[in-house]
Amino acid sequence: MTLGRPVPPPLGAKATLPDARTGRPARTGATVRAYGAASASSGLAPLDIKRREPEPHDVEISIAFCGLCHSDVHAVRGEWRDQHYPLVPGHEIVGRVTRTGEDVSMFSVGDLVGVGCLVDSCRTCDSCSEGLEQYCENGAVGTYGALDQRHGGEVTQGGYATAIVVDEKYVLRMPESLDPAEAAPLLCAGITVFSPMQYFGVEESDAVGVVGLGGLGHLAVKIAKALGAEVTVFTSSPGKVEAARGLGADRVVLSTDDEAMAAARRSIDLIIDTVSARHELGPYLRTIRRDGALIQVSLPPGQMPPVPVGVLAGRRIAYGGSMIGGIAETQELLDFCAAHDIAADVELVAADRLNEAWDRMVAGDVKYRFVLDVESLNPAQDPDGGRAGTLNLQERNA
Amino acid sequence: MTLGRPVPPPLGAKATLPDARTGRPARTGATVRAYGAASASSGLAPLDIKRREPEPHDVEISIAFCGLCHSDVHAVRGEWRDQHYPLVPGHEIVGRVTRTGEDVSMFSVGDLVGVGCLVDSCRTCDSCSEGLEQYCENGAVGTYGALDQRHGGEVTQGGYATAIVVDEKYVLRMPESLDPAEAAPLLCAGITVFSPMQYFGVEESDAVGVVGLGGLGHLAVKIAKALGAEVTVFTSSPGKVEAARGLGADRVVLSTDDEAMAAARRSIDLIIDTVSARHELGPYLRTIRRDGALIQVSLPPGQMPPVPVGVLAGRRIAYGGSMIGGIAETQELLDFCAAHDIAADVELVAADRLNEAWDRMVAGDVKYRFVLDVESLNPAQDPDGGRAGTLNLQERNA
Repeated sequence: MTLGRPVPPPLGAKATLPDARTGRPARTGATVRAYGAASASSGLAPLDIKRREPEPHDVEISIAFCGLCHSDVHAVRGEWRDQHYPLVPGHEIVGRVTRTGEDVSMFSVGDLVGVGCLVDSCRTCDSCSEGLEQYCENGAVGTYGALDQRHGGEVTQGGYATAIVVDEKYVLRMPESLDPAEAAPLLCAGITVFSPMQYFGVEESDAVGVVGLGGLGHLAVKIAKALGAEVTVFTSSPGKVEAARGLGADRVVLSTDDEAMAAARRSIDLIIDTVSARHELGPYLRTIRRDGALIQVSLPPGQMPPVPVGVLAGRRIAYGGSMIGGIAETQELLDFCAAHDIAADVELVAADRLNEAWDRMVAGDVKYRFVLDVESLNPAQDPDGGRAGTLNLQERNA
Repeated sequence: MTLGRPVPPPLGAKATLPDARTGRPARTGATVRAYGAASASSGLAPLDIKRREPEPHDVEISIAFCGLCHSDVHAVRGEWRDQHYPLVPGHEIVGRVTRTGEDVSMFSVGDLVGVGCLVDSCRTCDSCSEGLEQYCENGAVGTYGALDQRHGGEVTQGGYATAIVVDEKYVLRMPESLDPAEAAPLLCAGITVFSPMQYFGVEESDAVGVVGLGGLGHLAVKIAKALGAEVTVFTSSPGKVEAARGLGADRVVLSTDDEAMAAARRSIDLIIDTVSARHELGPYLRTIRRDGALIQVSLPPGQMPPVPVGVLAGRRIAYGGSMIGGIAETQELLDFCAAHDIAADVELVAADRLNEAWDRMVAGDVKYRFVLDVESLNPAQDPDGGRAGTLNLQERNA
C-alpha cells in the first residue's frame, strides 16, 4: 500500500470467497489508456485496458492524478508474490465522476473523488462491519493486481490510467479546497500514517516520533502537528534536518548520533516508523516512554532484525504494524487535511518518465511524492481523445 | 523476575539515584540463615547474612516459604549481568511479621505478609507516582542483587533465608485463606501473568491464549479462567494436554500440529507467552484476532527470531512485553486469588535439595513451581535456633 507497504498476502490475493460472492462477469465498458507492466522485469509502457461498464452502484471516474507508491514497484516487480500481467499499478487516484450507475446515491457527475488502496471487500465480516475494510477477514480487494470476485474474478487494474470504474462504497470525496495532485498521496501514504495515530489516540501535547522522512514520513509530520502533537523526526541524513524543521518538526534527531539518541531517551509516546530498509529497532524503542508504541508502517524486504523484548518489557511498549485505513477513516483524514490545509509535497511526472521516476523513488530521490499527471497519457495532438468521459479538473493553482 | 523473566538491566542494577536518595548505612541487625551462591558457578550452599535493624518504616518478616523462580537461576549464574557475591536469591517470599518500626502503620506483628520482586523504588517518578513501581524510571530496587541506595548502597539479599527486613510500602498482605506455600508464587509468577491481562482489560468471553504450561503458564490458565475468559493452552508436549484441561483450559492446541494451529487461526484476543526458550512467534500471531496482542513475559537467552511485521500489520496486532506488576496491583491479584481460591500447584523442597530443584526447574521437571520450605534452613536439632523472631505459621492444611 505504501513505501514498502505491508500486506502479505497482498490484498485480495488469496481470498477464497463464498460462491455467492462470485458475481457474473462484468459487461465490458470503455477502453482506456494506461501505463503498465507486461512482466515483472518489463518496466512500464503504454497499453490499453478495458474497464467494466458501470453497474448500478458503480461510478466511472476520469482520472486526473495518481500518486506513485513504493509498493507499486514491489508489486509490479513481483517482489511480494507472483502477479498477473499485464498489470497497471496505482492506488492514489484522484479524478472526477463522469458516469454513475442507476443506484448510486453518494456521488454525482462532476464530483471530485478519490480511490485509495481498496476497491471492494467482503462487506460482511466483523472488520467490514466495523468500517475496517482494510482488515477484511475474507481478503479485501486491492485496487490493482487482486482478483475481483464480485466481478467475475477479473484482475483489478490501478490508476496509472485515464479512467476507472469503482463501487461507490469504496470511493472517497476529495475536498475541493486541496490541490488534487497534492491530495492524491493522502489516499495511501496519508491514511497509512494517520490511522495508527487515531488508533493510539494522539492528541495535543502527545509526543510523536517519525522515523524516516519520505512520502509517508513527511505526511506523518504534517498530520501529527495538525493533531497538536510535539513532533520529533529521526533521520540518518544530516541533509534532511532543515527540511524536517521546514515541515514543522519540533525536534530533529540524527539517528547516527548516539549522544542525541541518548538524549531523546523516554521522550516519545508513539513512533511511526516509515523506513523501508532493514533497520535495528532498539535505538528507537529506547526513546519511547512507558506504555508507548512503535508502529512500523513499512515492510522492509526480507526480515527485520530481532526485536529486543527486554526493552519492550522494561517500559510495557507495544511494537506493531498498521495497514492503511478503512474507507470512513480515509474520508475522515481527507476532511481533516482540508480543515488544516494539509497535503503532500509532490513532484508531477509525465507518463513517459514513469520508469525514471520509479528509479528515483527507489533511490529515495524525491521530495516527497511523485504524482503522475494523467493528462500526459493522452496523445498531445488529441487532448480529448481516447479518454472515457473526460471532464476537466479545476485549475490546479486556482 | 520469573521463568526467564525480562528486566535488562536487572532491577536497580544501573540505577543512578540522586544524592538525596543515598541514605546512610543501615544499622546492622540480626544474622539470619540463608542459602546462597559464593560465585556464578558455585551452586547454592548454606551461609549467614546480616539484615538491617528495622528502621521506622520497616517490617521484619520471619520467612516461611519462598518460591523458586527461573530468574533466580539466571541471575545467580550471572547469565544476565555480573553479580555481587555472595548472593541469596528468592523473591516469592511469604512469612509473618515479627517486628515493626515505630512508624509502620499498615502491618502488625503476626500478620501474614509477602514480598515479591521489589523492595524499593525512587517513589517520585511518574511510574512510582502511578503505582507502577516495577517501571520506576530511576530503577526499582530488586529483592536480591540490587544496590539499595536508600540503605547505604548495600546489595539486597533475597528470600532463601529465614528472615528479611523490608519497608512496609513494598510488603503485601497475604490472604489467610490461601495455603501460604501455594500463594508464594503469586508474588512473581502470578503477578507477571495477571498484570498484562489487567492492562489489556481481559473480561468475560474474551479469548486468552497461554503459550507454555510451566510456573507462569499454569497460573495464567487459572487466573484467566477466574476472569471469565475462554482459555486456550498452546503446548508442544502431548503429555501436557490432559494437565492443561485439568487446570481449566477450554481448549488445548498442540503447537507442533500444523492443522490444529491453522484451525485456531484468528481465535484469540490476548496471548500470554511464557516460553523461556527461543521460539518462532508467527504461528502464534496467526491465531490472534484483529487488534489483539501477544505479550511475551519470558526473556529467552540470546535473541528471539525476527517478528513477522507483516502479520502484525495485517491484523493490527501488538507484540509487547510486561514486567511483574506494581505493589497495588500485586495486592489486587492476591485478593482476587483469595476470592477465587486460586494458588499455584507447588512441590515443597528442603534447603539441602535446592541445587537439585534448580536443575529440575531448568529441565522443566516440576508441576508447576518449587517452593522452599524455609523451616528446613534451621538445624533439625534446634528448630527455633538462629532465626530472627520466629513465629509459627498456621497449619498449612488447616
